[in-house]
Amino acid sequence: MVLASVTADAQTKSPAPADVDNNAAQEIRGWIDQWRKAVSAKDVDRVLELYTDDVVAYDIVPPLQYIGKAAYRADYQQFFSQYESDLRIETRDLHVGANGELGYATGLQMISGTLRHGGKSGAWVRFTSLYRKINGKWFDFHDHVSVPVEIESGKALLDLKP
Amino acid sequence: MVLASVTADAQTKSPAPADVDNNAAQEIRGWIDQWRKAVSAKDVDRVLELYTDDVVAYDIVPPLQYIGKAAYRADYQQFFSQYESDLRIETRDLHVGANGELGYATGLQMISGTLRHGGKSGAWVRFTSLYRKINGKWFDFHDHVSVPVEIESGKALLDLKP
Repeated sequence: MVLASVTADAQTKSPAPADVDNNAAQEIRGWIDQWRKAVSAKDVDRVLELYTDDVVAYDIVPPLQYIGKAAYRADYQQFFSQYESDLRIETRDLHVGANGELGYATGLQMISGTLRHGGKSGAWVRFTSLYRKINGKWFDFHDHVSVPVEIESGKALLDLKP
Repeated sequence: MVLASVTADAQTKSPAPADVDNNAAQEIRGWIDQWRKAVSAKDVDRVLELYTDDVVAYDIVPPLQYIGKAAYRADYQQFFSQYESDLRIETRDLHVGANGELGYATGLQMISGTLRHGGKSGAWVRFTSLYRKINGKWFDFHDHVSVPVEIESGKALLDLKP
């Protein structure tokens, strides 16, 4: 778990939890790897198999929320339809943790590829995901993916670098 | 925990976890209430007391991430400085859960008030927060707050309704 890299100091509010589950963190890293491969393959079935039926997602694009797997599937299909086959995901600044049946991952991702209507696309996004362990397997039940915005100008900031 | 409201079906991937912690969920709702009051009072010290020192936040505004309490404090100060005293938070579609020392909350929030430079401001945002229980008390160690954006036009969508 990433918290292990934080300097533990009993006097601060940031010691690593007593019951850090390194095994679960490793499993969630495996989930992210599976997801990345399925997304790069634009295989919507393989992607959606990784989610619970009651998933609620806050995506980069509207609406405010996608409630349930059918809605999120349509969102993924729309996303995949915009790219040629070379959709790539690069993850950095990853934080992963778990406690019992509840897990999370947060980090930055560069989503890049060639758009169907021409031109290269690439943007760094922030993601936060929540996972639930069911019958020994982790499923994502919440995604939050976004870019910052400039409030004054109303502009989405799609070209920020970490 | 909100999952209790989901129709549990052993055949689906979405049963409520066996070890749902209703008490912890109630405590996290209490955290959100404390946070709301401290934000409405624009009391940056009271707000930051609710976070761990190692908090990582993905805010509506740039940069991509605020790493550590000092950075996040400056972000809150900048946020508060834009408002007259009537900063209000309304939360809906709240999902809260916990397992052991790890908790989360997700939902929509209307942030509204009168700006210092005139005019009313109000926007629905999505938030996802992660909590760690330390010495019997919950602290937020990750915030993700955002609005969706329109990729084609590069516009932030600040007027969406849930």
